[in-house]
Amino acid sequence: MIHQGIRLSDIVGRFGGELLGDGETRICRVATLASAGSGDLSFLSSGKYRQQLEHSAAACVILGKKDREATSKPRIVCDNPYLYFAKVSAFLNPAPEVAPGIHPSTVVQEGAQIDPMASIGPHCFVGRHAKVGRGAKIAASCTIGEHAEIGDHTLVYPGVTIYDGCILGKNCVVHSGAVIGADGFGLAMDEGKWFKIPQIGKVLIGDDVEIGANTTVDRGALDDTVIGNGVKIDNQVQIAHNVVIGEHTAIAGCTGIAGSTKIGRYCKIGGSGMILGHLNITDHVDISAGTMITKSIDEPGTYTAIYPFAPHREWLRNSAQLRHLNGLAERVRQLEKEIESLERKKS
Amino acid sequence: MIHQGIRLSDIVGRFGGELLGDGETRICRVATLASAGSGDLSFLSSGKYRQQLEHSAAACVILGKKDREATSKPRIVCDNPYLYFAKVSAFLNPAPEVAPGIHPSTVVQEGAQIDPMASIGPHCFVGRHAKVGRGAKIAASCTIGEHAEIGDHTLVYPGVTIYDGCILGKNCVVHSGAVIGADGFGLAMDEGKWFKIPQIGKVLIGDDVEIGANTTVDRGALDDTVIGNGVKIDNQVQIAHNVVIGEHTAIAGCTGIAGSTKIGRYCKIGGSGMILGHLNITDHVDISAGTMITKSIDEPGTYTAIYPFAPHREWLRNSAQLRHLNGLAERVRQLEKEIESLERKKS
Amino acid sequence: MIHQGIRLSDIVGRFGGELLGDGETRICRVATLASAGSGDLSFLSSGKYRQQLEHSAAACVILGKKDREATSKPRIVCDNPYLYFAKVSAFLNPAPEVAPGIHPSTVVQEGAQIDPMASIGPHCFVGRHAKVGRGAKIAASCTIGEHAEIGDHTLVYPGVTIYDGCILGKNCVVHSGAVIGADGFGLAMDEGKWFKIPQIGKVLIGDDVEIGANTTVDRGALDDTVIGNGVKIDNQVQIAHNVVIGEHTAIAGCTGIAGSTKIGRYCKIGGSGMILGHLNITDHVDISAGTMITKSIDEPGTYTAIYPFAPHREWLRNSAQLRHLNGLAERVRQLEKEIESLERKKS
Repeated sequence: MIHQGIRLSDIVGRFGGELLGDGETRICRVATLASAGSGDLSFLSSGKYRQQLEHSAAACVILGKKDREATSKPRIVCDNPYLYFAKVSAFLNPAPEVAPGIHPSTVVQEGAQIDPMASIGPHCFVGRHAKVGRGAKIAASCTIGEHAEIGDHTLVYPGVTIYDGCILGKNCVVHSGAVIGADGFGLAMDEGKWFKIPQIGKVLIGDDVEIGANTTVDRGALDDTVIGNGVKIDNQVQIAHNVVIGEHTAIAGCTGIAGSTKIGRYCKIGGSGMILGHLNITDHVDISAGTMITKSIDEPGTYTAIYPFAPHREWLRNSAQLRHLNGLAERVRQLEKEIESLERKKS
Repeated sequence: MIHQGIRLSDIVGRFGGELLGDGETRICRVATLASAGSGDLSFLSSGKYRQQLEHSAAACVILGKKDREATSKPRIVCDNPYLYFAKVSAFLNPAPEVAPGIHPSTVVQEGAQIDPMASIGPHCFVGRHAKVGRGAKIAASCTIGEHAEIGDHTLVYPGVTIYDGCILGKNCVVHSGAVIGADGFGLAMDEGKWFKIPQIGKVLIGDDVEIGANTTVDRGALDDTVIGNGVKIDNQVQIAHNVVIGEHTAIAGCTGIAGSTKIGRYCKIGGSGMILGHLNITDHVDISAGTMITKSIDEPGTYTAIYPFAPHREWLRNSAQLRHLNGLAERVRQLEKEIESLERKKS
Repeated sequence: MIHQGIRLSDIVGRFGGELLGDGETRICRVATLASAGSGDLSFLSSGKYRQQLEHSAAACVILGKKDREATSKPRIVCDNPYLYFAKVSAFLNPAPEVAPGIHPSTVVQEGAQIDPMASIGPHCFVGRHAKVGRGAKIAASCTIGEHAEIGDHTLVYPGVTIYDGCILGKNCVVHSGAVIGADGFGLAMDEGKWFKIPQIGKVLIGDDVEIGANTTVDRGALDDTVIGNGVKIDNQVQIAHNVVIGEHTAIAGCTGIAGSTKIGRYCKIGGSGMILGHLNITDHVDISAGTMITKSIDEPGTYTAIYPFAPHREWLRNSAQLRHLNGLAERVRQLEKEIESLERKKS
């Protein structure tokens, strides 16, 4: 059906929205306004692409209600064009079916329980008493440690390492190079040498979690590191030992979260930032990209700390003053006193 | 012995400290105050967990001298409860014994010298003339390059790559995804194209070094990149070519250290920061998390550069002024002059 | 020839420059001034190493024209000593020849086209219809996804993952742990849950591109992520979906580039910085290390945003004022008004 395309009337039948135009029009692919050709479905989610809409060759466009008349093309009007589009895209691009079975090159240790409907690619290693659920797919060159568990329908891309005892829920996606369960960074100084604190907690990951490429989630020192259901983590994020992340929180790339910090539900954490350790971040907190959080946050809202960039010479001039800011404030206080004194004498 | 538990009197006999309470009490596990049950040993390292101590079900607690009477439970009083606890934990959670042997799926090239008491897991590749020491353990899917060396009792987790010629000392731990010895980032512009500078140095890593998951340590351009004994490096740290790191320095996650920088001994470098290239950082320097170091540091001490975060609207108002800071300082200078002039006229 | 060394006269014959000294002197290796011995060729690229030049045992030194008389040693005088040196080093340290063939442990799926002159190491996986070009070398434990393509003479180090459909050009170098083509971070909120936007674009990488260890380049959401010819990317860089990077741009380690941002040609981006999404950075822009770029840049030049570090106590005093900067500016405005009023009364 997809190869012949799907009729607009069928799309609206399945996903809702109001269709304006010929319901018999067939859609084969989804595409951006700029690159769409005939047979493609596109969408307008932001006003700034309106000019692209004008020149787009898309067969149909998904629009928000306020943009209802932005084109005379066949169109679907709905509340959230981006989400609508995503759903059609997911429908047109279904995940490939998992072909069950274990590649003969893979090494499975004694006591591992691999569901017969799971798929394990070549050159993997599955440790003693590990479990891999129904419909799960483990791609090439992965290591699933002893007593680790991979939930049903979870997809693990090539080159992922799950350390011993770590547990992933159902319907998760783990991208290549992710490392789940390495030791937390726990050290105590002992007569001039670092003594390594054993890291004997685990990582517990809920259902519907996505973990980006080369992201690391450390195992707990004593208690576990916990990632709630529906959490989405981008690439190259570092999550330290005993962090707890609430459900449906999203964390963009290159962010670091230090040990024992607890992050609430529905938070959005921008990329390249950091959250220090032993903090509590409440639910519904948005943290801007590049921001370091140094204290707990009790109030939902958006928090930011970005040093504004400037042409280098301008930055030099202004940043030099930063080293004297306290002195500058002192001088202003002094000026205020002197003015006050002058004014007093005057009157 | 561990399964029946170890008697408190035996713990004190082995690790010192003063025991208050029944020496026959047996300990099976270590745990946090909040999660400890009967049979568990816990510790109080910071006053802020005193309330947890009150409600803890731990069989015994390790306390500092000033907290000696903080509970009536069986307790061990010592100088450094965190370290004491770490040592008991290490005793109760010994590293699994290394089962010597090379997995048949592993490919070992000619001339490699693998100690008969070393263990090499499945799907590894050990290059020509590489050496792996006695009691070393290389887990699955690792590559040990030609002429690379892994010292005795060093533990390499799955999916680690050691490039040709790089040398790791004894008793090191290297976590999954770490890459030791990739080319440094050396380029020279040549008629509109980047010419790659050959990176022909190595990486030399001392004894007792820990390297976190997905951390990268580049090989030297000409001379070597050197990591001293006892250095501890967290996850996702990037160490560029020809960096030299002194003994017992600890580097937290997501930190970048640029080329040819030399860092002293016993430094502590917070996470998500950066140290520019060609700098010298003396011994015993602490660098706060998120801080960029742009100049050499000659004096021990703590150094910081963190832009304070704030609710977004407040940040907007304040950060806008940063672009005019030099102008503001100028205006204050001008005001000072005018006030002085007014005061002079007055008198 | 290299083992007996190469004569200086032959070097100058091949690479140009003016030779001062005995052309029969033979060079075996390149080295830094400090570590060079007899038989070594070194170079002086910056005045600050002149003292090392005095004590260097190097057999010959490459110098810029202004340093022509800085030594009485045999020397080669040229325009760009660093580049000259790099070329000699590349000549003396040629890449090892690629031994064609596919290791028997490697799994190659149906329809893959591997050039007979390509080399594929052990424990790799090459997916359906993937292509590997002439003289390309894929080291151990790599995954080359379905329909992915690796151009001629491209070198892929161990443990690299190339996702389905991603395309690398000729003469590229990809270091260990790099992940090319993982899903971009595309989510839409749907009744309290994140809905994953299918990421159906690819990654297209040009010729002569270098990609550092553990760097990640995400596939496009709909259109492709594109890395131009000659781009050089350091370790642990994160390039998000639909980023476009112009030719010959260089990006230092730990940098993050957010989705759909377009970067021009010949840009230099310092380490540990970030560029927000949906921006346009024109050609020939230099971005300082640690700098976050929050707006598009239309003018070539250097741009910076670094909070200056300081001893912790000094930082505390100054940074506290940052939270009141707008208030301080207000107070200065107020003072200016009052002074003006005082001066008016005076006259």
